[in-house]
Amino acid sequence: MLRAIQILGCSSGFISQRLKKPHSGNGFSLIHSKRSYSSTSLSLRPFWAPKSRSFRVIRMLSTQSESNSDAPSSSSYSVAVHSAGNVHKIKFCQWCGGLAKHEIPDGEEKIRAICTICGKIAYQNPKMVVGCLIEHDRKILLCKRNIEPSYGLWTLPAGYLEIGESATEGAIRETWEEAGAEVEVVSPFAQLDIPLIGQTYIIFLAKLKKPQFSPGPESSECCLFELDNIPFDSLAFSSIFVTLNLYIEDVKSGKIKFHYGIINKRSDMRLIALLLLVQCIIVCKGNILNSWE
Amino acid sequence: MLRAIQILGCSSGFISQRLKKPHSGNGFSLIHSKRSYSSTSLSLRPFWAPKSRSFRVIRMLSTQSESNSDAPSSSSYSVAVHSAGNVHKIKFCQWCGGLAKHEIPDGEEKIRAICTICGKIAYQNPKMVVGCLIEHDRKILLCKRNIEPSYGLWTLPAGYLEIGESATEGAIRETWEEAGAEVEVVSPFAQLDIPLIGQTYIIFLAKLKKPQFSPGPESSECCLFELDNIPFDSLAFSSIFVTLNLYIEDVKSGKIKFHYGIINKRSDMRLIALLLLVQCIIVCKGNILNSWE
Repeated sequence: MLRAIQILGCSSGFISQRLKKPHSGNGFSLIHSKRSYSSTSLSLRPFWAPKSRSFRVIRMLSTQSESNSDAPSSSSYSVAVHSAGNVHKIKFCQWCGGLAKHEIPDGEEKIRAICTICGKIAYQNPKMVVGCLIEHDRKILLCKRNIEPSYGLWTLPAGYLEIGESATEGAIRETWEEAGAEVEVVSPFAQLDIPLIGQTYIIFLAKLKKPQFSPGPESSECCLFELDNIPFDSLAFSSIFVTLNLYIEDVKSGKIKFHYGIINKRSDMRLIALLLLVQCIIVCKGNILNSWE
Repeated sequence: MLRAIQILGCSSGFISQRLKKPHSGNGFSLIHSKRSYSSTSLSLRPFWAPKSRSFRVIRMLSTQSESNSDAPSSSSYSVAVHSAGNVHKIKFCQWCGGLAKHEIPDGEEKIRAICTICGKIAYQNPKMVVGCLIEHDRKILLCKRNIEPSYGLWTLPAGYLEIGESATEGAIRETWEEAGAEVEVVSPFAQLDIPLIGQTYIIFLAKLKKPQFSPGPESSECCLFELDNIPFDSLAFSSIFVTLNLYIEDVKSGKIKFHYGIINKRSDMRLIALLLLVQCIIVCKGNILNSWE
C-alpha cells in the first residue's frame, strides 16, 4: 500500500527537522492523506497531541518534492557540510584548489560546481543516516541527545553512514557509540527519504546481545520505553517520529513489515521560521505484493 | 533469513565492479555460504556459467567489510568523484580554498580532511544508486550500456540519486533517461550495500505506464527479456547480477520479498587486476519475521 501523510511542523534544518510541541492554535495540524492507490491508513499520533485529541484529516494527492536550492542554511559549518548540498557554496576545487564555476555540464541537466582549472565536477549526493530500532522485552531503546541539534530530545541511535561500512555495520556502530549497546540486526525496517535536506534514513530492527547499555558521549541518558510510554512529546526528529509510529502500528497489527516512505519538507520562505510542510508517503511492502502470494 | 554469498570476480572500480566472464581455470569460483541464522540458500548462478555447471559451495561465516582506504583508484576523475572516498585526495577546502590537513578530529575516530584556514571538515559518505526492476508481461527491461564503464553490457536502468529527489523519484528519472520508459514504482525490492566502493544500490520493482521504451543517450539498446533469457553472461555490474538472481528466485518461489544485502569486495593488491572477493549477505525480510506473523 502507498500512503501519504502530511504534518505541519518546525525544523532545525539539520539531520531532519525537529518537530516541536506547538502552542495551542498556532496553525499546527496533521494532514493525513492517501494516494489514489493507497489501501489503508496510518494512525500517526502527533507527538504533541494528547491521546484523546482529534486532528483534521484531509484526503489529497501527494506533493512532489522540490529542488533543494533553497534549503535552510545554518551558521554552523557542520550543517553546510552535512545537510543538503548547495552547489553555490562550493567555491573551490577540493582536488587542485582551482576556482569553481557553476554551470550545467555537457550532457547533464543540473548546475554543478566545475573546476575552472582541472575540469573536475564536485557532485553532491544525498547522505544515508543509519540506525537501530532495538526491541527488548517489548520495549524500545531510546537515547536522550546530549548534543545539538535537538539537545535533550529523544531519538533512536542513528548517524551518518561512513564509507567502508555497510548500512548494518553503520547502524551497529552508531548504537554502540550512542547507547553503549551491542546489538544484532534482525531485519531492515524502514527507509525514509527526506529529499529537501538530502538525507535517507535506513532503520533496522535489532535486538540486544546483552541486556546492557549506557549513554555514550552524544547521549545523556538511554532508556527502554514501553510502547505506551514512548515520549512522543519530546522526540528529536520527524524520521524518528514516523519510524516509531510505524512500528507501533505494525505491533498492533501483529505483523512487522518493511516500510518505504518520503518525508517531503516544503518550505514557505515567509513562514520558514515556524512551519515546514512534511509529507510522508509510505509504501508498505507486505500488502502491495499480495498479488504475488 | 540472512545469507552470505562470495563471488570471486573482477572489478572496474566504478559504480560497482564489472564481473567478467573468466577464462577457464583462472581462479574464479562461487562461494555460497550461510550465516549461523540463515535458513535457506540462494541459488545464484554466476553469469559466466553454463546452466549445467556446478560450483564449489562452502559453508562459512560472513566476512566483515574492510576499510576503504586502499580502494582501487582510476585515472578517470569521474571515479575519484563518484566512487569510494579517499580522504587523502582532498587537498583543499571547497568552501574557502584553504589547504587541507588529514587528521582525526576531536571526538571522532576516522581521518578527515580538515581545512587549515576555516576548520571545516569535508565528510565523505557513501552514495546511493537507485534503479528500477521493470516487470512487463513476465519479462524484465534491460538496457545495453552505451557508455563506460561496462560499455556494451546489460544493466537495469539505475544511477546516482540526486539531492532534492526521493529514491523513487530518482529511480523513475533514471529509467526515463536510460530507457525512455515511464514507470510507476510498485514497491522496494532490494538494498545492496557495496562498502568498499562506498555505494548502496536501492532497487524498486516497477511497471510500465505505457508499453513504450527506447534507448536514451547512455543506452544503445533496450529490450524486454524473459527470465530464462536474461543475458547473465553479459551483465554490467555485480549488483545487477545479484538483483536479477534474487528476483528469479522470488518468482520461482511465488513470493516477491524485500532483500537487504552486502556485497563485500575484498581487494588483494597482488591480484587486484584479476580478482576481487565479493561477499553478499542477504537478509530476506519475509522469512525473518515469521515469529511476528
